Amino acid sequence: MNDYQIEMNLSQSRKQKPAFDNLQFGRNFTDHMFIMDYTEGKGWHDPRIVPYQPITLDPSATIFHYGQTVFEGLKAYQTKDEQILLFRPNKNMERLNRSSARLCMPQIDEELALYGLKQLINVERDWVPNLEGTSLYIRPFIISTEAHLGVSPSLTYQFIIILCPVGAYYKEGINPVKIAVETEYVRAVRGGTGNAKTAGNYASSLKAQEVAGKSGYSQVLWLDGKENKYIEEVGSMNVFFKIDGEVITPELNGSILDGITRDSIILLLKHWNIPVKERKISIEEIYQASKEGKLEEAFGTGTAAVISPIGELFWKEKLLVNNGETGSLSKKLYETLTGIQNGSLVDPFGWRVLV
Amino acid sequence: MNDYQIEMNLSQSRKQKPAFDNLQFGRNFTDHMFIMDYTEGKGWHDPRIVPYQPITLDPSATIFHYGQTVFEGLKAYQTKDEQILLFRPNKNMERLNRSSARLCMPQIDEELALYGLKQLINVERDWVPNLEGTSLYIRPFIISTEAHLGVSPSLTYQFIIILCPVGAYYKEGINPVKIAVETEYVRAVRGGTGNAKTAGNYASSLKAQEVAGKSGYSQVLWLDGKENKYIEEVGSMNVFFKIDGEVITPELNGSILDGITRDSIILLLKHWNIPVKERKISIEEIYQASKEGKLEEAFGTGTAAVISPIGELFWKEKLLVNNGETGSLSKKLYETLTGIQNGSLVDPFGWRVLV
Repeated sequence: MNDYQIEMNLSQSRKQKPAFDNLQFGRNFTDHMFIMDYTEGKGWHDPRIVPYQPITLDPSATIFHYGQTVFEGLKAYQTKDEQILLFRPNKNMERLNRSSARLCMPQIDEELALYGLKQLINVERDWVPNLEGTSLYIRPFIISTEAHLGVSPSLTYQFIIILCPVGAYYKEGINPVKIAVETEYVRAVRGGTGNAKTAGNYASSLKAQEVAGKSGYSQVLWLDGKENKYIEEVGSMNVFFKIDGEVITPELNGSILDGITRDSIILLLKHWNIPVKERKISIEEIYQASKEGKLEEAFGTGTAAVISPIGELFWKEKLLVNNGETGSLSKKLYETLTGIQNGSLVDPFGWRVLV
Repeated sequence: MNDYQIEMNLSQSRKQKPAFDNLQFGRNFTDHMFIMDYTEGKGWHDPRIVPYQPITLDPSATIFHYGQTVFEGLKAYQTKDEQILLFRPNKNMERLNRSSARLCMPQIDEELALYGLKQLINVERDWVPNLEGTSLYIRPFIISTEAHLGVSPSLTYQFIIILCPVGAYYKEGINPVKIAVETEYVRAVRGGTGNAKTAGNYASSLKAQEVAGKSGYSQVLWLDGKENKYIEEVGSMNVFFKIDGEVITPELNGSILDGITRDSIILLLKHWNIPVKERKISIEEIYQASKEGKLEEAFGTGTAAVISPIGELFWKEKLLVNNGETGSLSKKLYETLTGIQNGSLVDPFGWRVLV
C-alpha cells in the first residue's frame, strides 16, 4: 500500500492510564508520540514514533517570538467489536497543509502523516477508551524551530502528533450554552488568518471569552471585522441557525474556519432533504427572526463538542432560543454524527477510516 | 534602591564571541539568560540568571497550540568611555504588560524586570559591542507553559530575557527600501491584537512579505482591515510621511503598535519645532501628494533599524519618494536618535538609563 519507513523507538515503561469514566479534556497523554523534522533544502525527514517526551528548543526558536505554528484536532473511536475508527482524517491533513501555506510553512505528505498517525494509534490501542461518549483525541501540529530572531519563515520545523483519551465534552449529554454577541473584540478579518488553524487566532480570542465569562456567558458569537455586522463563528466553533424550517450557516469567506464537523453537518442535512444554505447572516437578521418567533434552533459545531446547542444569545437584550432547551434537530444531528463516528450507526458517506 | 533577590548561577565556560565587525542579526546569543516563573496562585517567582540554555516544554504546552506569548525588543549601547546605556527601557516593560493584558497573561513587576535586565547585562558586559552602529539586542519575552490542550489562559508562564550582539541594521548606512502597498492581506484590525507585541501578528505578516518579495519589494505597507484604505504600518515598523513640510504618522487606533522609536521621533520633531501630526492617513492622500510633488520623505521606524527610509512605493503605479534617496530629515533623525542612544550626543529628554 505504501513504503513509508517509520522508525519505532518504543517506551520501556508504560504510564498508568486514567479512569476512562472520568477523563479531563487534554490533560492525559499516551505513552508515545509521532514526530518528524523539516530542514530547508532537505525537506521532511526522520519520521519516527518515540516515547512521549518534552520538546527542547533554543530560547530564540521562532515559535516563541514570531508564532509560525498550525494544528489540527480529530478523534479516534473504539467500536463495540473493538475496531478503531477515524473520522474523515484526510480532511484534517488537507486543512493542515492549507493552514501551513497561509503561514509560509512547508507542506507535509498527507499520506505519510495519516500513515504515521495510524501506526501511532496502533501502538496505543489500549489508550482508546470504549465508554459511551469517550474517544482518543488526536492533536497533529507543526512548530517552527529555527534559533533565529528575525521576521522571516523558519528554516526548520517539527511535525508532531500527540494523543489523549477524552470523555464526552458534556458529561450529562449535550446542554445548551449561553452566548454573548461580541461587539468590541474581533477574531479575524478577511485578509488575515481566520481560516487557518493557527495559534494566534486562539490567543487573540481569550480576552473576549474572559469578558463574556464575567457576565455569565460561556462563549461569544464573533462578528466580522470589517462591518461588525455579519456572524462568523461561536467561540472556536462554526455556527448554524434554524430559521423558519431552513438551516443556515455563514459562508466560508476567508476569515471563517472550514470546519470538518461543519461540512459533515451540511452533507447530513442535504442527505435528509432538510434545506440548508451557506450565506452571509447578519446579527440583525437573527435578532429579527428571534423577535418574530422564527429562530427555532442555534448550535455550534466542532470536533471537541460535535454539536453545542445555543440556549440564549445576548445582543441588545436576552434572546432565548427554543426556550433555552436543546432543539430536536440539534439532538438528531448530534446522535447521528456521533453514531457514525463511533460505529454504532451505518456510515452512508464513507467517512470512517479503519485503523 | 530595591531588595530584589536574583539567584545567580553563572556558566563555568564562556562561548567564543563572534567578530563584532561582522554580526548577523539575531543569531549569536550570550552566555546567560534571565528567567522567572509564574504559577497561578503563587505569582511570579524564582527570578534567576542562568547559563543560556534550551527551553524544555511538554508537547501539549499551550504556547505551541494556542499561542499566548508576548515579547519586547530594545538595545544596549556601549559608549566611548565604556559605559553601557539603555534607551527608554521602562517603556518596553510597560508595553510588555499592556500586551500581556490583551492576551490574558499575568502582569510582571516592571521594576523587577528592569533590575533583572541590568543584572544580566552586567554579567555580559563583554558582549556589548563597541563598534559604530553595533549594539546588544535585548529580547524579553513571556511564553505560556501549561501542559493542557484547552482554549483558556495558561496557569503557568515563563518570563525570559536573552541577549545578542548585533551590527548596524544597514551595513552601508541607511539605504532606502522599496515598499509595495498591500491590498489583499491584512495585518490587524481594530478589536484584534494589532497593538500588542505578540507572535501571531508576525506569523500572519509573513505571507504578504513573501508575495511582495517575489516582485522585488522588501516589505509591504499595511492598510487598515476595515476599509483597506488607511495606512497602518510598514513591515513590522511604524511609518512616517513628510508632506509639504509637515510630518504625519498614523494615529494610534488600537491596531497599530505604540512604537517607542515612533514616540521618540514625534518628541524629537516637536523639540525641533517641525510640525508633526498623528492622524488617519489614506493611501489615496499619499498618492495624491506624490502626484503633486508634495511627498517629500517617507520612512519606517523601529528598534532594529531605527529609521528605514522608503525610496519607492507601489500603489496603482511606482511612486518614487525623494528620487529614491534618503531624505535630509530621515538622515537627521537617524543620526540624532542613534547619537542619543549610543551616548555620542547629549540627551535632552532623559531617555538614557545607565546600566
